[in-house]
Amino acid sequence: MLEISEIFNASAVLKDVARKTAIIPAPKLCPGLDLYLKAENLQLTGSFKLRGAYYKISQLSDEEKKRGVIACSAGNHAQGVALGATHNGIKALICLPAGAPISKVEATKGYGAEVCLVPGVYDDAYAKAMELQQEHGYTFVHPFDDPKVIAGQGTIGLEILEQMPDVQAVVVPIGGGGLIAGVAFAIKTLRPDVKVFGVQSSGAASMATSLKEGKVCHLNDVSTIADGIAVKEPGINTFEICNQLVDEVVTVNDDEIAAAILALLEKQKLVAEGAGAVSVAAAMFGKLPIDGLKTVCLVSGGNIDVSTLSRVITRGLNKSGRNFSFIIDLADKPGQLSGVCSVVGQNGGNIISVTHERINTSTAINGCTIRLELETRDMTHIEEIRQALKEANFNVLN
Amino acid sequence: MLEISEIFNASAVLKDVARKTAIIPAPKLCPGLDLYLKAENLQLTGSFKLRGAYYKISQLSDEEKKRGVIACSAGNHAQGVALGATHNGIKALICLPAGAPISKVEATKGYGAEVCLVPGVYDDAYAKAMELQQEHGYTFVHPFDDPKVIAGQGTIGLEILEQMPDVQAVVVPIGGGGLIAGVAFAIKTLRPDVKVFGVQSSGAASMATSLKEGKVCHLNDVSTIADGIAVKEPGINTFEICNQLVDEVVTVNDDEIAAAILALLEKQKLVAEGAGAVSVAAAMFGKLPIDGLKTVCLVSGGNIDVSTLSRVITRGLNKSGRNFSFIIDLADKPGQLSGVCSVVGQNGGNIISVTHERINTSTAINGCTIRLELETRDMTHIEEIRQALKEANFNVLN
Repeated sequence: MLEISEIFNASAVLKDVARKTAIIPAPKLCPGLDLYLKAENLQLTGSFKLRGAYYKISQLSDEEKKRGVIACSAGNHAQGVALGATHNGIKALICLPAGAPISKVEATKGYGAEVCLVPGVYDDAYAKAMELQQEHGYTFVHPFDDPKVIAGQGTIGLEILEQMPDVQAVVVPIGGGGLIAGVAFAIKTLRPDVKVFGVQSSGAASMATSLKEGKVCHLNDVSTIADGIAVKEPGINTFEICNQLVDEVVTVNDDEIAAAILALLEKQKLVAEGAGAVSVAAAMFGKLPIDGLKTVCLVSGGNIDVSTLSRVITRGLNKSGRNFSFIIDLADKPGQLSGVCSVVGQNGGNIISVTHERINTSTAINGCTIRLELETRDMTHIEEIRQALKEANFNVLN
Repeated sequence: MLEISEIFNASAVLKDVARKTAIIPAPKLCPGLDLYLKAENLQLTGSFKLRGAYYKISQLSDEEKKRGVIACSAGNHAQGVALGATHNGIKALICLPAGAPISKVEATKGYGAEVCLVPGVYDDAYAKAMELQQEHGYTFVHPFDDPKVIAGQGTIGLEILEQMPDVQAVVVPIGGGGLIAGVAFAIKTLRPDVKVFGVQSSGAASMATSLKEGKVCHLNDVSTIADGIAVKEPGINTFEICNQLVDEVVTVNDDEIAAAILALLEKQKLVAEGAGAVSVAAAMFGKLPIDGLKTVCLVSGGNIDVSTLSRVITRGLNKSGRNFSFIIDLADKPGQLSGVCSVVGQNGGNIISVTHERINTSTAINGCTIRLELETRDMTHIEEIRQALKEANFNVLN
């Protein structure tokens, strides 16, 4: 089982490898709360996963090191294992489902691992990894349910206590539970007065469900934009530690996670992946009893695909009224579009695109329907423009 | 004139106000270079500007403080002055052009300043500020050409030397020159062996032009996505200091700036505004003699509008082949679109949108033209899909 001395040992081993990431004040993120961010998105490889993987690998026997390690992951764990193995001068083989994003495959190769693309989904890649492990005697590096991996992640708990001795609460994302198990073990051993809260995506609440049921539960389906914590079943070790040490586990939904990603981007100038932003989402949407407590939200990683980021931004802009599409019925004659554009311009809207709908059964045969996409200031501004369009006798359909 | 003792004094004054922002390693940003980032985008208010404005305000006489301060800015300087004045318990009036983005107006108000919206452009707001200053005896806080403001920005130079004593080169964005004047003065006074390079946008190269001409030059037009450094004329003081102390000033264009913003987002998980990213752009695109030198790029701010950020991402995705629109001529009969979609899907392309062009003179009367927007992996992937579409006898027009 885990000992605090092991976490201190991991800290010494990681000293020259892992970055001691900054704790950044976040006074404007949730007005009224005393919030800080432990920015593990600024960690080497873009995620905390490096810590556990590196420490695990460093503790292998010479014999095990000679045979090499294997892991199965399409994400942060893969990059952590790859970098850990390369730094320790040993071979790493990472099994990935063949459909994994090329950026992740390239990143893993870039840290020096050999990549084995397995046709099918994650479970197929996992089966292949098991097969190869048996065949070649590789050591399998589990992404979360290994005491050494947990000890590595626990070094973040030590850092928080050292960087902010007067911390009163720590909020930690949960997937399989490796991160929170390590952090909670470190903090509750040294400073049992500090609260430790966990956050899961409501679309993948395996730890929350397991804690409620009092035993490890398996979810058949998980679905969330926080792909880094889309885990169907927590670990046995991580479940036990959470059950004993974590004060409360709450969940946030995809919209809340997207809002947190956008808030981190705008107010903190930080890129967080969905899994990394759940802690902030829980604080923003009042899920946690942290009023008046000096609270550190752990932002666990920043490896979000920029296409996804772009979609999150667009959705966020829509929700806050800074982007809107009007659907307008026009008589199909010259000057109509110009009239619409002029009304929009006079009212401070910025037209991004105009699309003519080709066929629309609700339109008169000599009419047409256009979709006008605008940049706007807020919901009030949208209403002002709508009003102005109506006053100019344009038929706004939405 | 500026003295190094003044910069040390500014450092003491700012100790409990400005964040000592982290220096973050950037090993993957420019392979082959030894690069680090001084992350002033993580500064309170999202930009270094707070330092100079705060220090200037703190040094006013009691009489001056009683009368209050005035500034003219739609950006980072406004927020710096607002926060500086509020912390010092004095009144701040910020003149802004009436068309300024509502987010910036709100941010400035949020830091406690009174805002005066002036009809017209920046020059009108400036004229109004001058008028109000004369009328009420406010102190005008210049955004860059004031020794106290320069001293405040110079504290970043001290921090870099303290945080990384073996630094060999520092790369600094230039608008009016306040930041680089302070940083160069601090560094060249204490460590004349450290190189100091400046970077401007090629669309607003007023300092670069002035240095070349040997005198302060005025540009009639400036145009750049780096709005924070779109300055028509450097300061007299800042020009003198740059002329004496800065090793070289180079320029980068808007495409290079956009690429740097995207690289910072993806590889460093940091949001930078255009002005903040020019230092990194100069390193990425080989504009500087920093091979083999331990180099700190100053990322001066992160206050970029998310709509702009979204556009930068889209453009970057396009340029790197991760997003592409095919224009395809189709016979206007059932099954055609389904055929196209099936070919794209089989080849791993992800369709984002399908638009039917309404009228296209090059199309047969019973045909139609569609625009198919895809997420792709890279340029090679786009070519694979194009090839597959052609082999299936679809008429790809682009």
